[in-house]
Amino acid sequence: MSHGKQFTFYTHKAGPNGWKVVFVLNELGLKYENVYIDLDFQKPGYQDPEFTKYNPNGRIPVLIDHRNNDFVVWESNAIILYLTEKYDTARHISASTPEDKALELQWLFFQASGQGPYFGQAVWFVTYHQEKVPSVIERYQNETRRVLGVLDGVLCKQEWLVGDKYTIADISFIPWSNVAINRILADVEGVNIEKDYPSFYAWHQKLMAKDVVKSAWAERAALIAQ
Amino acid sequence: MSHGKQFTFYTHKAGPNGWKVVFVLNELGLKYENVYIDLDFQKPGYQDPEFTKYNPNGRIPVLIDHRNNDFVVWESNAIILYLTEKYDTARHISASTPEDKALELQWLFFQASGQGPYFGQAVWFVTYHQEKVPSVIERYQNETRRVLGVLDGVLCKQEWLVGDKYTIADISFIPWSNVAINRILADVEGVNIEKDYPSFYAWHQKLMAKDVVKSAWAERAALIAQ
Repeated sequence: MSHGKQFTFYTHKAGPNGWKVVFVLNELGLKYENVYIDLDFQKPGYQDPEFTKYNPNGRIPVLIDHRNNDFVVWESNAIILYLTEKYDTARHISASTPEDKALELQWLFFQASGQGPYFGQAVWFVTYHQEKVPSVIERYQNETRRVLGVLDGVLCKQEWLVGDKYTIADISFIPWSNVAINRILADVEGVNIEKDYPSFYAWHQKLMAKDVVKSAWAERAALIAQ
Repeated sequence: MSHGKQFTFYTHKAGPNGWKVVFVLNELGLKYENVYIDLDFQKPGYQDPEFTKYNPNGRIPVLIDHRNNDFVVWESNAIILYLTEKYDTARHISASTPEDKALELQWLFFQASGQGPYFGQAVWFVTYHQEKVPSVIERYQNETRRVLGVLDGVLCKQEWLVGDKYTIADISFIPWSNVAINRILADVEGVNIEKDYPSFYAWHQKLMAKDVVKSAWAERAALIAQ
């Protein structure tokens, strides 16, 4: 760790899950060095032992905290919980009460199990799979719409997911919501996200307008254009 | 809540995710009333408003804690974290230090995002999908094997996932590991789980032999046979 910053952060220039951690690191004003991994999305796991010694699952993101005995943690939502638990003691972007913490976890698990993998399957079958199977593509487009509907139904009654404030629960949904809007559902006939899921859409726009999100997303666009 | 027990627990007789919560409730000696929901696995979400008022995502399990102002929480891993945070203060089956807690979350998120959804897709495409698509079935069989390999690679170096003790991180994998062994990979040519993933298999057998797991799994068998 010759870079002198507190964290080393293994991530990918485009992949959604790394960016939610960037939003949180930047919200908390923490200093980190990015190491970009060239994941091959067509292979099921990254096999370089220099990387799998940190994460046996072979996936980004991975965070190393050099000010905590080089503590290593992977799984994006576990990383953002580690960061807020340890470095957001004022609860600027995380829940305060035990009940709100439980609800924060509930939404983080819904994001990790209900949004990420299903939106990811939609992208896989539209873009990477060896054959185009309409019934399978449709399954994941429909599941993407269902998840947006669940969020919309909640957000029409409250501004944020947990405790009446902007937290990591909201932040965690940003990258894959962008994938749904700009990619999975962009060209699906009869779908108009702004009109069909207005509360979801307004919440997502509010999140995209946050300073740390706006600047990180611009950084991502520049990296991808390289 | 006329049943007089501390918790009402909405679950399903066969579905994997409810049972991990049962293991934890029983490990902690907590009293609960089961309400079995007749989910139709061929529909994407349970739509009964009497149920979706508790979980807008329309999935089991859902827990209501009547001794905490009828607090409602869903997502199985959020439920078991709520239970251990509040009722396992002696840390009998949960991590103690901040670092072990972060690793417990890491494995719980890997279970929720890497095991559950992918093993679930394997079952979907083998059993429920409208057409049999070999390349899709193979994708999820392969991913199931990859996940068992990740676990095996870790468990050949340590007995438990976190902190040298049996915790909810281990417990969370039990039901879907059973699905992999008894269903997804049971008839796949060239796969012998005991031989191919010996450390994973030994760990899983040790978990299945725990008193609360053994008795709950027998209860499940009886319920399914009804």
